[in-house]
Amino acid sequence: MASKIKKIAVFTSGGDSPGMNAAIRSVVRTCAYLKVECVGIYRGYEGMVEGDFKPMDARSVNNIINKGGTILKSARSDSFRTPEGRKQAYDNLVANNIDAFVVIGGDGSFTGAMIFNKEYDFPVIGIPGTIDNDIFGTTYTLGFDTALNTVVDAIDKIRDTASSHNRLFFVEVMGRDVGHIALNAGVGAGAEEILIPEENLGLERLLESLKRSKKSGKSSSIVIVAEGDKTGKNVFELKEYVEENLPIYDVRVSVLGHMQRGGTPSCFDRVLASRMGVRAVEALLEGKSNLMVGIQDNKLILTPIEQAIKGHTKIDKELIRVSDIMST
Amino acid sequence: MASKIKKIAVFTSGGDSPGMNAAIRSVVRTCAYLKVECVGIYRGYEGMVEGDFKPMDARSVNNIINKGGTILKSARSDSFRTPEGRKQAYDNLVANNIDAFVVIGGDGSFTGAMIFNKEYDFPVIGIPGTIDNDIFGTTYTLGFDTALNTVVDAIDKIRDTASSHNRLFFVEVMGRDVGHIALNAGVGAGAEEILIPEENLGLERLLESLKRSKKSGKSSSIVIVAEGDKTGKNVFELKEYVEENLPIYDVRVSVLGHMQRGGTPSCFDRVLASRMGVRAVEALLEGKSNLMVGIQDNKLILTPIEQAIKGHTKIDKELIRVSDIMST
Amino acid sequence: MASKIKKIAVFTSGGDSPGMNAAIRSVVRTCAYLKVECVGIYRGYEGMVEGDFKPMDARSVNNIINKGGTILKSARSDSFRTPEGRKQAYDNLVANNIDAFVVIGGDGSFTGAMIFNKEYDFPVIGIPGTIDNDIFGTTYTLGFDTALNTVVDAIDKIRDTASSHNRLFFVEVMGRDVGHIALNAGVGAGAEEILIPEENLGLERLLESLKRSKKSGKSSSIVIVAEGDKTGKNVFELKEYVEENLPIYDVRVSVLGHMQRGGTPSCFDRVLASRMGVRAVEALLEGKSNLMVGIQDNKLILTPIEQAIKGHTKIDKELIRVSDIMST
Amino acid sequence: MASKIKKIAVFTSGGDSPGMNAAIRSVVRTCAYLKVECVGIYRGYEGMVEGDFKPMDARSVNNIINKGGTILKSARSDSFRTPEGRKQAYDNLVANNIDAFVVIGGDGSFTGAMIFNKEYDFPVIGIPGTIDNDIFGTTYTLGFDTALNTVVDAIDKIRDTASSHNRLFFVEVMGRDVGHIALNAGVGAGAEEILIPEENLGLERLLESLKRSKKSGKSSSIVIVAEGDKTGKNVFELKEYVEENLPIYDVRVSVLGHMQRGGTPSCFDRVLASRMGVRAVEALLEGKSNLMVGIQDNKLILTPIEQAIKGHTKIDKELIRVSDIMST
Repeated sequence: MASKIKKIAVFTSGGDSPGMNAAIRSVVRTCAYLKVECVGIYRGYEGMVEGDFKPMDARSVNNIINKGGTILKSARSDSFRTPEGRKQAYDNLVANNIDAFVVIGGDGSFTGAMIFNKEYDFPVIGIPGTIDNDIFGTTYTLGFDTALNTVVDAIDKIRDTASSHNRLFFVEVMGRDVGHIALNAGVGAGAEEILIPEENLGLERLLESLKRSKKSGKSSSIVIVAEGDKTGKNVFELKEYVEENLPIYDVRVSVLGHMQRGGTPSCFDRVLASRMGVRAVEALLEGKSNLMVGIQDNKLILTPIEQAIKGHTKIDKELIRVSDIMST
Repeated sequence: MASKIKKIAVFTSGGDSPGMNAAIRSVVRTCAYLKVECVGIYRGYEGMVEGDFKPMDARSVNNIINKGGTILKSARSDSFRTPEGRKQAYDNLVANNIDAFVVIGGDGSFTGAMIFNKEYDFPVIGIPGTIDNDIFGTTYTLGFDTALNTVVDAIDKIRDTASSHNRLFFVEVMGRDVGHIALNAGVGAGAEEILIPEENLGLERLLESLKRSKKSGKSSSIVIVAEGDKTGKNVFELKEYVEENLPIYDVRVSVLGHMQRGGTPSCFDRVLASRMGVRAVEALLEGKSNLMVGIQDNKLILTPIEQAIKGHTKIDKELIRVSDIMST
Repeated sequence: MASKIKKIAVFTSGGDSPGMNAAIRSVVRTCAYLKVECVGIYRGYEGMVEGDFKPMDARSVNNIINKGGTILKSARSDSFRTPEGRKQAYDNLVANNIDAFVVIGGDGSFTGAMIFNKEYDFPVIGIPGTIDNDIFGTTYTLGFDTALNTVVDAIDKIRDTASSHNRLFFVEVMGRDVGHIALNAGVGAGAEEILIPEENLGLERLLESLKRSKKSGKSSSIVIVAEGDKTGKNVFELKEYVEENLPIYDVRVSVLGHMQRGGTPSCFDRVLASRMGVRAVEALLEGKSNLMVGIQDNKLILTPIEQAIKGHTKIDKELIRVSDIMST
Repeated sequence: MASKIKKIAVFTSGGDSPGMNAAIRSVVRTCAYLKVECVGIYRGYEGMVEGDFKPMDARSVNNIINKGGTILKSARSDSFRTPEGRKQAYDNLVANNIDAFVVIGGDGSFTGAMIFNKEYDFPVIGIPGTIDNDIFGTTYTLGFDTALNTVVDAIDKIRDTASSHNRLFFVEVMGRDVGHIALNAGVGAGAEEILIPEENLGLERLLESLKRSKKSGKSSSIVIVAEGDKTGKNVFELKEYVEENLPIYDVRVSVLGHMQRGGTPSCFDRVLASRMGVRAVEALLEGKSNLMVGIQDNKLILTPIEQAIKGHTKIDKELIRVSDIMST
């Protein structure tokens, strides 16, 4: 492959997600395999502006495929939001002879890449790394699968104590704008009800559902609530509301929080990261740019970053129906 | 839905796989939701021949979504292989007013269903439950994802000790005829080499690869070997061969064995099982038969059982290439 | 053994803890082994008052050794706090020919048992089941070890994301009155600071410690806070305080909550439960009463329940020192 | 503390075990805390002979408390078995101004330390790191608790498939000379029978026990076999024997192997390692030598290394009895 691309940078940006390290490893090793130089940039765009670069070879990424977080760190960058910051970043890339970069992150990170690409025509490929699974152009984002296992594992534990005491639990999971984690983990954990931002069925319907659940002889109930759900203000208010209006329940609340972002990635996320990293480097060497690597029907595809950002994945109606039926 | 199907039986058959219980639960609850009677059959076709039936309602399947194995048990059945046995099975189904059944299992189980359907025109829908992921018509079989996590978790542990001692490990994983587990878990675990039944690259190539790996500065090496691989006779012979021909390595062997079939199912397998169970019951109520529920491009599809059995999923060339690049 | 005790009841009471099922199993199987009848009481003292009894044999407790929660359920009982309630409970025990009982629970449960024993001279042996490890007379309570693993596993995940973003996390763990979970899990998770109810070193010292930690070059900090800690009002106020007074940190909060009570028990808790169950039944058959089975120096010992309740285990000064040194 | 010890070396030796890294971290940080220099030696005695030393400060051991294996590696050393090798090792220590060392390992490693100490009067403290729990002077060795959880987790998975098929499994676990892992994990996993090197009850008793188990209505059976057990030649021969003599069973075999040595250490092992590391350094600074740090009754104690090696921990008769009762 006689490509003009001789040196590729890789970095992680935005909220971290399990599988980011596996993706870094894949980019670095694919570069090594294809005899292209590789540079890691620390702390995302911030490190790009500050010139925090480090050469990486195949051995730099030993033993990280199974590590959560990101060895290249992540950070917000205010300076990259300014033209001066981006100028500085560009100068740093040029000074280091970097011909292209792979950005691993979510839609905020991709927006930054797109703007940068427009201003400097700098070759860039994105890899979707976020637990939220809210990127258009890929059925799965890196970290989503692992986060689901983490949530389901936590709820399995909560159910132990819930059913020992015949209790109702409201469990808050991540998802400010989208309910993918809530819906999938809710079905996986056998939740009685799942509240997501995309649907607001109202508090009354929740009460009806809980009454029906109690009546049907269930010993405990778990209600999964996405962060961004609008049924109640939050899980604490939902608890109060149910305690007042349905005093048959002893109600508890659990907010799973940041542990959802961490942990050893699942095999699914490791394999996906490895595949995406290869494709990202290959795409750059083929002269492609401004695209995101995604997976659909178990095949890697490339989507313009612009589209990836704009169109969020829709919540799956079929899965909502499955969730309703399962709580019979 | 005014279907002729008023009573559905469900059973598991063949080797068990994680997610089978979640699929049973889904079939049972979907029946309850759609006001259809449901019956569990113990020990697969053997229980069908012996009339080992049990009525199941929504509460019969409480707290099983996260359990490995199958509450309905599984068994081989010699009697069902005979026309007399199948006659007996049919009589039992009729005597219990069972109008259709859902079989959860692998290709052996589906073959039984197909033969039975041909002989008695009995409505049947299959759900692919096997860790091997070797069924045509579905990108994922139930249990495959969980088995991959189990394998990768075990190899992560083995790598701890391998890299503490600079050792080479041959790790045997399941897969008598297909290398899906080996290939995916191998990429996920960062294996240096993956030996699968579909490819025999020969012992010499293995030696070359191990030499290269040592030379590149790796502190340890893991070679994943599918049960059915033909490079060596088995992992023990591979160990001997390498010890004789490449004495730079301290070699060890590990056979992961039956633990790969068990364990709490991953969220992926639980959701997949829940979705497939709903679709299976709905398909029967729609008057369909002799089909298997599969998933492709994250959508449920139906494939004639006959096709599902015949065409094994091909090993993914792209993933083999990823595996080669990752071991750089 | 020619004991007067021919029929023993077992129940769980108070907050559930991992290992309770293993203890139930052990009591039931020891009774079976020693040819004594055994009865399970549902929902603790509440079930005793209501007569919610169920005969149990060796097979009733199959496949529960690895289950979190308690198959006999637990509940608070207001009625048992009244003389009338206890009279009713006693009458139920007598009517069912129950000669003695084993109570698995914490100090509240033991207090109930002691009062009952005083009033009715009813033979009783306690097994300490609580994750808090706050019972005198035993180095370990059932569930403590499992809870520690759950907490440490969650903090390992939080650290992934903490160190990817150079953040400070306050993580709240259980322990309203005692800091055993916080102190042990804090040392196990490599926490920079551990705040427990037994010590209040003040907010200023916390600030100093965090400054020192930052200065020493650590990329992230985890502070473990026991529920009952008095340094701040709670983790949310601690966050605010640090953000105001030490703005070098990006601070986050996580409340681990009820998942700490659930989950598959560790091997340690399963073995401990099995040993304690045997000893509890044997003690009753030996004519002993009003004692709690504990473990010290890896040997089972019996302590008067009265003492077990009164004297809480002291926090270990040596471990506090270890925690200080480890955060160097 | 005005000690003559100004510089301490630490290394791991023999088979690795989970918790070794936590112990290294503790030794290094305690040195930092007490203002003593610290040096890591790679590959145990071999690295001592070869002079493979590396200065370590508090930050050198960041993020290793939760890692299996040993960052300092381990190796067998033939040269250290010779007087010349030990002379070379001593010269290297002296040349690097090392005043004392902490060895983390099992009895082979301690024997080496003792011989070296006798020859050169070199201050040495041992920390018992081995999954086998076979060191006199400590109730628990580092890694034992983690290995038990690993084994029990694997057997939980095997039981899923065993009970789905009504099978008998022989599961081989580590323990060439002692049965601690087999006995504890066997009780923890609810094994029907446990075969250990310390007891040979004979094949006939095994058959009787299996018959009784089948008769009692159990759906599956797990027999745990320590590597060093003499009842059969190995698990494969046990399988053959039972198949011939008790054809009611469908028998399978699983050899858990090296995964038992790896994995993220449990909280118990991390805390123990942290405590032992502190005590080891303190003991050296107090002028002590030729002792091993152990834990008894939850207190750290020092035992002459000579005694630690000679007296193996005895198998616990009470636990054997518990195991018998539990398989009722």
